[in-house]
Amino acid sequence: MKTTSNTIEVGVIGASGYTGAELVRILSRHAGAKLRVLTADRNAGKPLQSIFPQFAGLELPSLVALDDAKLDALDAVFCCLPHGTTQTVVAGLPKSLKVVDLSADFRLKDTGVYAQWYGHKHQAPALQGEAVYGLTEFARGPIAKSRIVANPGCYPTAALLPLVPLLEDGKISGTDIIIDAKSGVTGAGRTAKEGTMFAEIAGGIHAYGVAAHRHAPEIDQELSGAAGHAVTVTFTPHLVPMNRGILATIYVRLADGATAGDLQTCLASRFDDEPFVKVLANGATPATRYVRGSNQCHIGVFADRIEGRAIVISAIDNLVKGASGQAVQNMNLMFGLNESMGLEQEPLFP
Amino acid sequence: MKTTSNTIEVGVIGASGYTGAELVRILSRHAGAKLRVLTADRNAGKPLQSIFPQFAGLELPSLVALDDAKLDALDAVFCCLPHGTTQTVVAGLPKSLKVVDLSADFRLKDTGVYAQWYGHKHQAPALQGEAVYGLTEFARGPIAKSRIVANPGCYPTAALLPLVPLLEDGKISGTDIIIDAKSGVTGAGRTAKEGTMFAEIAGGIHAYGVAAHRHAPEIDQELSGAAGHAVTVTFTPHLVPMNRGILATIYVRLADGATAGDLQTCLASRFDDEPFVKVLANGATPATRYVRGSNQCHIGVFADRIEGRAIVISAIDNLVKGASGQAVQNMNLMFGLNESMGLEQEPLFP
Amino acid sequence: MKTTSNTIEVGVIGASGYTGAELVRILSRHAGAKLRVLTADRNAGKPLQSIFPQFAGLELPSLVALDDAKLDALDAVFCCLPHGTTQTVVAGLPKSLKVVDLSADFRLKDTGVYAQWYGHKHQAPALQGEAVYGLTEFARGPIAKSRIVANPGCYPTAALLPLVPLLEDGKISGTDIIIDAKSGVTGAGRTAKEGTMFAEIAGGIHAYGVAAHRHAPEIDQELSGAAGHAVTVTFTPHLVPMNRGILATIYVRLADGATAGDLQTCLASRFDDEPFVKVLANGATPATRYVRGSNQCHIGVFADRIEGRAIVISAIDNLVKGASGQAVQNMNLMFGLNESMGLEQEPLFP
Amino acid sequence: MKTTSNTIEVGVIGASGYTGAELVRILSRHAGAKLRVLTADRNAGKPLQSIFPQFAGLELPSLVALDDAKLDALDAVFCCLPHGTTQTVVAGLPKSLKVVDLSADFRLKDTGVYAQWYGHKHQAPALQGEAVYGLTEFARGPIAKSRIVANPGCYPTAALLPLVPLLEDGKISGTDIIIDAKSGVTGAGRTAKEGTMFAEIAGGIHAYGVAAHRHAPEIDQELSGAAGHAVTVTFTPHLVPMNRGILATIYVRLADGATAGDLQTCLASRFDDEPFVKVLANGATPATRYVRGSNQCHIGVFADRIEGRAIVISAIDNLVKGASGQAVQNMNLMFGLNESMGLEQEPLFP
Repeated sequence: MKTTSNTIEVGVIGASGYTGAELVRILSRHAGAKLRVLTADRNAGKPLQSIFPQFAGLELPSLVALDDAKLDALDAVFCCLPHGTTQTVVAGLPKSLKVVDLSADFRLKDTGVYAQWYGHKHQAPALQGEAVYGLTEFARGPIAKSRIVANPGCYPTAALLPLVPLLEDGKISGTDIIIDAKSGVTGAGRTAKEGTMFAEIAGGIHAYGVAAHRHAPEIDQELSGAAGHAVTVTFTPHLVPMNRGILATIYVRLADGATAGDLQTCLASRFDDEPFVKVLANGATPATRYVRGSNQCHIGVFADRIEGRAIVISAIDNLVKGASGQAVQNMNLMFGLNESMGLEQEPLFP
Repeated sequence: MKTTSNTIEVGVIGASGYTGAELVRILSRHAGAKLRVLTADRNAGKPLQSIFPQFAGLELPSLVALDDAKLDALDAVFCCLPHGTTQTVVAGLPKSLKVVDLSADFRLKDTGVYAQWYGHKHQAPALQGEAVYGLTEFARGPIAKSRIVANPGCYPTAALLPLVPLLEDGKISGTDIIIDAKSGVTGAGRTAKEGTMFAEIAGGIHAYGVAAHRHAPEIDQELSGAAGHAVTVTFTPHLVPMNRGILATIYVRLADGATAGDLQTCLASRFDDEPFVKVLANGATPATRYVRGSNQCHIGVFADRIEGRAIVISAIDNLVKGASGQAVQNMNLMFGLNESMGLEQEPLFP
Repeated sequence: MKTTSNTIEVGVIGASGYTGAELVRILSRHAGAKLRVLTADRNAGKPLQSIFPQFAGLELPSLVALDDAKLDALDAVFCCLPHGTTQTVVAGLPKSLKVVDLSADFRLKDTGVYAQWYGHKHQAPALQGEAVYGLTEFARGPIAKSRIVANPGCYPTAALLPLVPLLEDGKISGTDIIIDAKSGVTGAGRTAKEGTMFAEIAGGIHAYGVAAHRHAPEIDQELSGAAGHAVTVTFTPHLVPMNRGILATIYVRLADGATAGDLQTCLASRFDDEPFVKVLANGATPATRYVRGSNQCHIGVFADRIEGRAIVISAIDNLVKGASGQAVQNMNLMFGLNESMGLEQEPLFP
Repeated sequence: MKTTSNTIEVGVIGASGYTGAELVRILSRHAGAKLRVLTADRNAGKPLQSIFPQFAGLELPSLVALDDAKLDALDAVFCCLPHGTTQTVVAGLPKSLKVVDLSADFRLKDTGVYAQWYGHKHQAPALQGEAVYGLTEFARGPIAKSRIVANPGCYPTAALLPLVPLLEDGKISGTDIIIDAKSGVTGAGRTAKEGTMFAEIAGGIHAYGVAAHRHAPEIDQELSGAAGHAVTVTFTPHLVPMNRGILATIYVRLADGATAGDLQTCLASRFDDEPFVKVLANGATPATRYVRGSNQCHIGVFADRIEGRAIVISAIDNLVKGASGQAVQNMNLMFGLNESMGLEQEPLFP
């Protein structure tokens, strides 16, 4: 690791996708980090600005192929590669680098579960053990000491932030947790497909991957840890005609004797000092537009019409708290920086 | 009732809102009905085309105030007035008219429940008893004989179409029915409010009326009838940045021994001959865009990850099957016409 | 040509794109035509409904490869293939078929101009001469007698409808005609590309093909014919975050002595009896939403702030009057049917 | 003026609209200014967060009525009131305050022109003379010395940034300048009106105020100054289904001997050192999405198909460079701060 400067030197592997661009947006204004390397194999040699003209005013390193990237001099890299391709890349990185991986490759602790959901054997099971699941608010200690952070998925982040404390505190049952989630289209990445074309998405909504989305086992894993027993969730993602945002509407069964008010109290207390999680006053409903472009998570709690049940709603920006923002939050922790550094921007609304 | 012609002469009371305009769109091409009267108190004297230029090519009666409208010569009227204001209007209509009321005023059988949810005593309790709840597919006999049809709400239509047969056939439990619904913005009507301005809606999603929406008791009422016992649902509506469409993602508990496949079979069998309800092949997911502008309802059934549970998804256009299309479907039945008359258009996609 | 029935039997070559789907939508309700053949090479063997679920309720022929399609029994085909690939296909069709070609392949009379803009020599110059440029309102006689109609481009349709009468009547100058056009995203077709992904389009607007779009020479050609001398236009297309619609804002220089009022009178008079072209009353502004899903063109005329100039605005649905609707309008003419048959639907707003 | 601290203490008059919210977003992270007063007469007593939940994480002064606001202790105020109401308010402010007015009230130098376009006599003609038209890049000296800055309109900002240098340098003619502008919906403000409801805007585009928009005389005034003779422009604004952004497509006549390349050179040279204006490389087209949320202006230059003409395109965010961002840029100048302070954020894309 570089030690002669106070500024962390970082690289982004896979900089031509949306999470890569979002890292550039955040890190270009980060007081403690400097972007040194941007890789993009198919666009090697081009300036990033030719792909993302929003950076026209920035001075940035040109895109290089990963094989040509000089990584040794860096302190940290962010991996923004597709699921399945990251394991071997991370295995091949200099051990001096700290790594925040935004893919799903190191999130599942059980390599059998990984194989089942991703369709192939894990290529770096040893590193799997080393990686820390980086939902920042719940793992500050391990993250600070880790070399590899598996940055959580966007849906899991939105679901786990309210559910983990409620399960840990025994306020809700671990059975029949139903997560109805709605995502903006950037969650599908930047690879052109018919299904994410404008004319296929605008003016409509649909569910996809019903009871079969790869974020389900990730949510199960973390909730099981919080509950102390195996938890299986119902999880239905939907695609909404918006660029950014995840809204998770979560239906839970209250623990015996608990009320929706208890849930509100539990969460408000848990997140009281958190810079990025805000439990809204009773009755206020989270909306993705009010966290857009920020690392914030808004949470609301509601009594249900059915006795013994409650509804918890959370909202994040999938590209920020659900990906690149949380990745920087983790990097800050890993290097002993102020956790909020680079993440202070207010949401962009309207 | 007029008897000298084969064409039904109809009026639209409250023609300057979205459901009124949708009735004009449908009825202007209806082979068995003729638009004779359009009322709009604040816009009396204007051509409808000055409000809705999409009708520039049509010859239509000018807007008149309700008090000035000649209704005696008509066969039927559609009431598109706000909730709460319709009871006295309908009570004052000539008894020779058949009435399809698109407001909520005659939907709830229990006037106590009405008072609880709408905040005032029902003004026409006698007519309340006369009105038939017009979810066409489940009430053809009564609708055909009725004088007043209470046209179902948009959310109830989307939820009841799949749930009623499943409860009637005992395939699902009446407890813990969770309806997570997503609506286009036209569902909020055409009155200008901050909350439905473009800049407040575009690029975001939020829930509203959580556990407190007025369509909940309407759904309860009809499901209770289907189940043979009192049913209380969880119902969470969301506002989606799209003009039209409702997607209802419904989480149900299977009856003992039942499977998701049984639900699929039950629904496919029940709706096999229906012109406007289509149960999709196993695994296909309904999307609002594929019913946009049509009177269609698409339904999909999915096994859940949690044993003993299933997910049922339905999609309609809130302004058509959820309002004006179903209203015309009901009018057709009330006058002995082919039920599909005027409703044959394919969805408009993209 | 089939002669034993009153119903025209038609095929759609290239049915899996947006203009193909739009033809299916229109023709499935056409009283004088029957869809017999749908081709789509990559999707041969599938039902069209697997690609376009909005047709779930229709009985349609399955998709076949073009080479396997039985075209001899048909009366007419619509060609919805990409530019450049259509010439040889049309050349190979049975001569008994009437053809409406929605590509650009037969629109430019001068094969040199074609080669210049499309980058290769025309493959069927003989047929080029036979084809009639099918802007219906201006070419009814030739269209009715033709075997091959080159269906106009969407931008040219929007621009030519108001400009041709004004030039023919000498109301405007042929110099300095500036066409600033705004299009919905379906105009770019259904091939997945980064540039038409939802997240790249939503919430923004940009110009493209500035002074270099292939529809410019098509507009030049037809305006030159109307003016009686060579006309070169300024033409700037823009991509708007909407699915359908073209708005052409056209800046013209008035002929000596002419006023904006004269333009209004000229156009109102010219289109007075037209079923699909509506010149709006003075001061009313066309909007694409009011023609969405219909074959209508709305036109508005405005005096400019600069003396001697005027502004003319036209709005169409690019997939209907700008493509498939006009194609059916032309087919109707070619077979002596009522020109409006199948095209009577009102616009879908909101 | 306060002098005992290095931090400017500022107020926002009219904080419950979009430009007010945008000022809060920017100023809450401004290193040299502190928000002390927020006024909103109708919402006095509420926290701003109840109106704009995106600020849930900020500590802000509560809203007060203007009459109750303690303005004497401030250094500066931003006026975000509607046009016509601002003159008397500004006239009544303590003379110790510096004022950036975001309304149109002080932009037109000729009070006769003001009366003609705004329909009433100017209420503070003396202050009119004192106010400096604050298009920052062209008026740094006067702005730095001024007490009242009339912040330019959003359309004028987009049009003037490229046109003023071209006229000053004699590269284009002052006649026949045609500005076809496209705006996001926030430009219409936050007052609920039918015309800006989601369902009226989504999926469509239209022109408005054709040849009659109040920003036209403002553009004329500044271009006349740049040209040295009276200039009258053609100006057509359009409403685009997006929240933010203005794209101005400008059609100009080249001066004798000038080429489009000369225009490119002129602008690139003029803006070379500007932090917020970027002239794109030849052939690149500006897009509003690439400046969204930032104070940037992107400009592109293109040769036209018609000889002797060129096309210039500019893109800004109407709420930032077109309103609140430029207002802060001006405040920075007025107080001798670094002009970019608080405005360093990169655009938010996607």
